[in-house]
Amino acid sequence: MRVEILAIGTELVSGAKTDTNSGWLARRLGDLGLTARFITLLGDDHADNLDAFRVAAVRSDVVLTTGGLGPTQDDLTREIVAELRGVPLIEDRDSLEAIRGFFARLNRTMSPRNAVQALVPEDCRPIPNPVGTAPGIWAPPRPNDPQVRAAFVCLPGVPHEMKTMFDERVIPLLRDAFPQAFGSNVLTTRLNLFGRGESEMESQALDLTTRGRNPDVGITASDGLISFHIRSFGSTEAEARQRLEADRQEIQRRFADFLVGEGSEELPHAVARLLAERKVTLALAESCTGGMISTELTAIPGISAHYLGGLVTYANTAKTQLLGVPASLLETHGAVSEPVARAMAEGVRLRLGADLGLSVTGIAGPGGGSLEKPVGLVWFGLATSQGSIAHRSEIGPEKPRDIIRKRAVRIALDLVRRHLRSSADPHRPPQTNDLASSSS
Amino acid sequence: MRVEILAIGTELVSGAKTDTNSGWLARRLGDLGLTARFITLLGDDHADNLDAFRVAAVRSDVVLTTGGLGPTQDDLTREIVAELRGVPLIEDRDSLEAIRGFFARLNRTMSPRNAVQALVPEDCRPIPNPVGTAPGIWAPPRPNDPQVRAAFVCLPGVPHEMKTMFDERVIPLLRDAFPQAFGSNVLTTRLNLFGRGESEMESQALDLTTRGRNPDVGITASDGLISFHIRSFGSTEAEARQRLEADRQEIQRRFADFLVGEGSEELPHAVARLLAERKVTLALAESCTGGMISTELTAIPGISAHYLGGLVTYANTAKTQLLGVPASLLETHGAVSEPVARAMAEGVRLRLGADLGLSVTGIAGPGGGSLEKPVGLVWFGLATSQGSIAHRSEIGPEKPRDIIRKRAVRIALDLVRRHLRSSADPHRPPQTNDLASSSS
Repeated sequence: MRVEILAIGTELVSGAKTDTNSGWLARRLGDLGLTARFITLLGDDHADNLDAFRVAAVRSDVVLTTGGLGPTQDDLTREIVAELRGVPLIEDRDSLEAIRGFFARLNRTMSPRNAVQALVPEDCRPIPNPVGTAPGIWAPPRPNDPQVRAAFVCLPGVPHEMKTMFDERVIPLLRDAFPQAFGSNVLTTRLNLFGRGESEMESQALDLTTRGRNPDVGITASDGLISFHIRSFGSTEAEARQRLEADRQEIQRRFADFLVGEGSEELPHAVARLLAERKVTLALAESCTGGMISTELTAIPGISAHYLGGLVTYANTAKTQLLGVPASLLETHGAVSEPVARAMAEGVRLRLGADLGLSVTGIAGPGGGSLEKPVGLVWFGLATSQGSIAHRSEIGPEKPRDIIRKRAVRIALDLVRRHLRSSADPHRPPQTNDLASSSS
Repeated sequence: MRVEILAIGTELVSGAKTDTNSGWLARRLGDLGLTARFITLLGDDHADNLDAFRVAAVRSDVVLTTGGLGPTQDDLTREIVAELRGVPLIEDRDSLEAIRGFFARLNRTMSPRNAVQALVPEDCRPIPNPVGTAPGIWAPPRPNDPQVRAAFVCLPGVPHEMKTMFDERVIPLLRDAFPQAFGSNVLTTRLNLFGRGESEMESQALDLTTRGRNPDVGITASDGLISFHIRSFGSTEAEARQRLEADRQEIQRRFADFLVGEGSEELPHAVARLLAERKVTLALAESCTGGMISTELTAIPGISAHYLGGLVTYANTAKTQLLGVPASLLETHGAVSEPVARAMAEGVRLRLGADLGLSVTGIAGPGGGSLEKPVGLVWFGLATSQGSIAHRSEIGPEKPRDIIRKRAVRIALDLVRRHLRSSADPHRPPQTNDLASSSS
């Protein structure tokens, strides 16, 4: 089945905004055993929309579109679909009721303009939107119309609305309309690793990543997190599963020490899971990461049983007042130093009554670096009731502030992961050996 | 001049890798006063490439392509351009010498396959690559060929090679070939607003966003931040500037209360700027936002003079231990309540010795909601030395955790912005009236 994606919005072609919807849809299609052939971004322009819809309508079987369904004059998708098919737009009563209900639940007045969102081309069906105002459009193929060979699935551009609708509504629609295109013979997974560079990992997996091999194994990297994407094909589901399993085990065997999780499980989830398994509580003291580690942990529902809280001690006064770091330590060694990292971890552990204290203090730049302490130098501290340790990392050189902070978050979380994973007793003092691999 | 971009590589349509080249090119085009009409991502497939090149060759004046110029069998761009034009590929001696020289400088042996990178379609010219092996291709328009109206500029997919070549080689080429398309007569800016919904803002600006008007004004929304994109054209730069200025002032006049900043200045920057102007220090107590506000503020270099630090009091024990929120308040009213929000703001202000204390406590879901306190209910507290206030917001319903948290961050920052903006004395007690507009 030939599938393509159209992402609509002037902000996407002007470079003002990055299109994340298409990448998500492409990965979802991959999970279903399908591949997008084209992803086209285009602006809110009538002629350009008509052109792109016409091109797609004859070369593909299914066209997924995002954007252009809002209530404003810029939102053209409804009109374009109607024009392509030569049918009028009609008001769909159920959609109008749903939009009214949405505003009523928010206790907000519905703007008259929102009524246009209930319009649908006459020979098409609305796709209900359970989480927003804009319904989607299901425009079936027209077998006798050489200009409209493709089915169109039009979804809103708001990512969480688009994703919910795709998973809940569109997949069943497509399975119904194109039963032959979906088999149970494609299985995918993703293994996430941390602690070694992409090229080093890749050089140890060249036999797996050969083109044309089954399973197909690809490697991607993002801020130090390396992902192996395995996609396995089989004439039966059991065959595909067996192949997937073999590769999964092989990668686990080769990179056991670096394996963080599978699928959407990345470092914060691994830490959350290990904290729960070991019945351990954690407290954080963040300086240069400024709350980012805390943000990632608290994105996980239910973490509050094990993550007690944290301190963002951005100014030096906050380090002394809130964490009890002696002013003399700060004067003698500077804020970015081994003794201060340890004192921060010990201080936050005690003040929050946690089992583990984790600290980060570093120079994220662009200013503040020196020959001895360059931009990108970060010290991490880890404390238990029985002792503390510090770990040094140089992230850079010449990395931007944002990248240094993101990488520091991952190294910090990996330190906790390695400590919890390696020691039989999570309360024993942290060991340098356990943590050594986080230095990359 | 009609410009479009083709980004070639199977990893881009499979979702394995994000295409960053096209966004960069789109922004560069914008700087030159040009707009990409289409950005198309496609895989390393011969038929798909030919299809995409054919479509672009008739609908655009200039087509920029990235990728497909490497030495492997997957790299098809050279072939496709030759096939589109019906000409053979010939070896370019200068390119071959340049490739040999590149390997010699690296002390590496040139693989025989790299010689294919010196091939160029007979009626085209190579574009030298000073930083890599793959030269680009300049394929001029063919005025008498209805199938090839467009000029093609083919660049490698490696971002730093592509960027260097575009800036150093392609811009002069395009200025030469299309002198009439480049002027100093296009100016752009972006005004960022917060506090009202997209459709409400747009309904008050329909006269500005009319299609075909000069300046061209478009509206985008992202997590509650509304941006007006103004793009003004003039026969002289002064004329374009005058038009831009008129629209900027008109939008400022209509939406003065909601205007956060211009260009890349969003809420964190506005707060940072106001803190510096008013010589005020801030401390944060975050519960459901878990460190996100702190993360956004500390992304701004130099903020440490005004942002002292924050507490992430995720567990209730942290609220009492670190902030001194009385346990009785938590028991009587619950953590998500007006008295607790105020006590958190007061507590963090005192403990960090700051001028302003800001707190957030809410139910981010998916669990933990009730009829009385639904998921999405968030209380915000703001304290000065002379008093405190609380602000209630319902974000939702049915919004995912991630969205509730992001929106809460913006509302919180906007509270501080409004307080600092409206009161002559930033130390006076916060006023409900000043903050009222953040409830959207």
